[in-house]
Amino acid sequence: MKPAPILIASLLKSESPLPSVLVRGWVKTRRDAKGFSFVELNDGSSLASLQIIVPEGLLGAEGLKDVSTGAALEAEGELAASQGKGQKWELAARRLNVLGPAGPDYPLQKKRHSDEFLREKAHLRARTNKFGAVFRLRSLCSYAVHTFFRDRGFLYVHTPIITGNDCEGAGELFSVTTGRPGGEGGCPKPDSAGAASANASAPADRKGGAAGGGFFGKPAGLTVSGQLEAELLALALGRVYTFGPTFRAENSNTPRHAAEFWMIEPEAAFFDLDDDMDLAEDFVKSVVSTALREGAEDLALFDSFVEPGLVSRLEELLTAGWARIRYSEAVEILSSSKASFDYKPEYGSDLQTEHERFLCDVHFKGPVFVSRYPASIKPFYMRQEEGGTVGAMDLLVPKVGELVGGSQREERMPLLLARMKELGLDPAAYWWYLDSRRWGGAPHSGFGLGFERLLMFLTGVSNIRDVIPFPRTPGNLEF
Amino acid sequence: MKPAPILIASLLKSESPLPSVLVRGWVKTRRDAKGFSFVELNDGSSLASLQIIVPEGLLGAEGLKDVSTGAALEAEGELAASQGKGQKWELAARRLNVLGPAGPDYPLQKKRHSDEFLREKAHLRARTNKFGAVFRLRSLCSYAVHTFFRDRGFLYVHTPIITGNDCEGAGELFSVTTGRPGGEGGCPKPDSAGAASANASAPADRKGGAAGGGFFGKPAGLTVSGQLEAELLALALGRVYTFGPTFRAENSNTPRHAAEFWMIEPEAAFFDLDDDMDLAEDFVKSVVSTALREGAEDLALFDSFVEPGLVSRLEELLTAGWARIRYSEAVEILSSSKASFDYKPEYGSDLQTEHERFLCDVHFKGPVFVSRYPASIKPFYMRQEEGGTVGAMDLLVPKVGELVGGSQREERMPLLLARMKELGLDPAAYWWYLDSRRWGGAPHSGFGLGFERLLMFLTGVSNIRDVIPFPRTPGNLEF
Repeated sequence: MKPAPILIASLLKSESPLPSVLVRGWVKTRRDAKGFSFVELNDGSSLASLQIIVPEGLLGAEGLKDVSTGAALEAEGELAASQGKGQKWELAARRLNVLGPAGPDYPLQKKRHSDEFLREKAHLRARTNKFGAVFRLRSLCSYAVHTFFRDRGFLYVHTPIITGNDCEGAGELFSVTTGRPGGEGGCPKPDSAGAASANASAPADRKGGAAGGGFFGKPAGLTVSGQLEAELLALALGRVYTFGPTFRAENSNTPRHAAEFWMIEPEAAFFDLDDDMDLAEDFVKSVVSTALREGAEDLALFDSFVEPGLVSRLEELLTAGWARIRYSEAVEILSSSKASFDYKPEYGSDLQTEHERFLCDVHFKGPVFVSRYPASIKPFYMRQEEGGTVGAMDLLVPKVGELVGGSQREERMPLLLARMKELGLDPAAYWWYLDSRRWGGAPHSGFGLGFERLLMFLTGVSNIRDVIPFPRTPGNLEF
Repeated sequence: MKPAPILIASLLKSESPLPSVLVRGWVKTRRDAKGFSFVELNDGSSLASLQIIVPEGLLGAEGLKDVSTGAALEAEGELAASQGKGQKWELAARRLNVLGPAGPDYPLQKKRHSDEFLREKAHLRARTNKFGAVFRLRSLCSYAVHTFFRDRGFLYVHTPIITGNDCEGAGELFSVTTGRPGGEGGCPKPDSAGAASANASAPADRKGGAAGGGFFGKPAGLTVSGQLEAELLALALGRVYTFGPTFRAENSNTPRHAAEFWMIEPEAAFFDLDDDMDLAEDFVKSVVSTALREGAEDLALFDSFVEPGLVSRLEELLTAGWARIRYSEAVEILSSSKASFDYKPEYGSDLQTEHERFLCDVHFKGPVFVSRYPASIKPFYMRQEEGGTVGAMDLLVPKVGELVGGSQREERMPLLLARMKELGLDPAAYWWYLDSRRWGGAPHSGFGLGFERLLMFLTGVSNIRDVIPFPRTPGNLEF
């Protein structure tokens, strides 16, 4: 009888030899010596592979050919103290069975491949050390996100992906229409008869009704933020957070932008702007701390090959409170600096990337919260303050720039309505949002954090395409 | 100085009186007695509210008027042993401050409201006991999902939402196009110039390029399943799972269907069909068990008001292994039963809802796995077996019907290609999927589970619209 299969990550933590184990995974390399072959087997459960000692004759020369880089195999044998350097355990194979060979045309032969090449091979790249590490950290950090909020009494909520509103009026929307499948590669062909888009100018009917033309009875898009809905839930459940996909139809090919990315948006009733910044700081520190503690092996890879000094940089983040300045102070710092900027820092203008970089990379040499921006450069829902500012805050961090954007929300109906009027927003379209202030409204705050940006900050990976398994950017819809 | 605010759920678990606490929440009810008012305050952290004793004169008759159902307030005082029945603690208020009143026109006055009425008020319904309980359980179960898989070495992966393939060819797709915001209520207007839909017949270019017309250079839709991409990742990382939104553009108004819902899809390398059924059974039992243990207070509400006997039904599920039969046996059971069906059970036809119901509700009186269906009624990717069946399995459960659908996947290239040819699928469109078999392919299995169905099964709630905060169905896009 076969022993039960075990993951290599568990096996490598074994405290004693084991007479009979079964492992399955993919061959990293094979090296032949006199009387033995050494096979590095990886099953994705950890960066470290298991060294398998294959006695000559177990497979024969012909069978051994199939034990090549990329091949899937299972091996049974004894876990014994390793004779070699760099590993505690090795497997002395008694049986070895190739499940799926990978011939010499396998694209990921053992050598360095460029990130660009591997993006073209996104269906295979998770088999490399680097991308395996990225995706293990992605999973680890996702769990850290949930654990952080759960421990603080936040409920995980799912806000809608398909939406009839665009939250901030910022960000280009993707439209959603009904379609008939059957295009190239199983892709939908637009349905000229019943598409919601054919109905864009029809009046929005609160009761809806597909009979009106489109599937939803009114134009539909992909959400750019779950914030407005999260606010409704925070004003009922107290503390909530989203963690889900959001979308931008911006045709910008930069290393920091993707059309589809995952966002984390906590929203908490009775939190003011200071509470909000405390939450954001605790949150980022908590995820970083979990990554350092539980993802050390994978982080070490990035420290060695992607950003030397990464681990020290992350550890330093945890040692002190982060700087907090007002927007007006930020403008003063920038104006009085000797740095030369393409855009002159001026009160009333948004901070440019170069300004953000100067503040955190040069001036503070660490994360900094910038808060209380002029209302004129911020969306309608932010809480108005004396002096024409709003209770907004951004967290700027080295390497990445803006990591968090948040605010205390305007809970006072007359001020909210006045601001909407100023910006030409129709209150009737937001009746449900306004209702949350009409009855039992309360001060509340929240923020949004792009999960991919957090991963870039954590790993030193500089292109967003390399922290998402199958990135969506202009012109890229493969896989 | 104010004490730090505390959540009511924590307060109610206090082991001793506390001289000074601060709570914030919404008024459930107020009852006036001689010399005192009794206020039930709920902050969403638990079903149970905190009773606040408000001495006459603290607010005055005028101020007390604002302390009405739905109002947001904060209260400070002493946590003391309750004099009343049904609660251990109460708060003797020394200070009480209404943050946001809710007048007599507040729609959720204390009385029973119909589910239909509350769907129209989805922006407020999380404030009711029932929907608060639904969404707390939703959050609890989400965490249980992540914990279950993490404990078993599964990595959480994010597969694409916007996709160029439709996975099974089953299920109507929504199309995604670029649009210009600015329609009614901030909704996008279709962009007649650059919409991807205008490009539906353009050749799919592997390298893409937005210049080709649409944003992605080829037609795009919303995913119906992350399975195919999860398979790629399982064949690299070993064990993975998705937990994200999926979509169906089916114009069907039933209590069990929504256009947008969250799906959980584990995929495991080296798992066969039996492993897959073991995983599904362990998974459902684990989530049920967590809900019983940590969500007992909320589940009791459903046991009392939605499905009497619910808790016993759930507890019974955990006591024994679940039945497992082959499809052929299922057909025999149905054929030889005396039940009258609208559709005659016949080998080679899909099981109808009435058949599924008979099997689990009447025959097995519990969950049952049905496996090894005829290939002719299943998608191309399922593993072919002798006798014309495939390694598919469905888990049928009382009340809900099909809860899980899974299979062992076809890892053998020639058989996979033959089946695709039979079904008229173009291998070129699936080059990346086929590559995963070409190099290092291995047996693997997975399943999909609709998270909302699981919640319906857990709570007895019979309409999918009542387990999602803001459901999307034909004609419904509000909020």
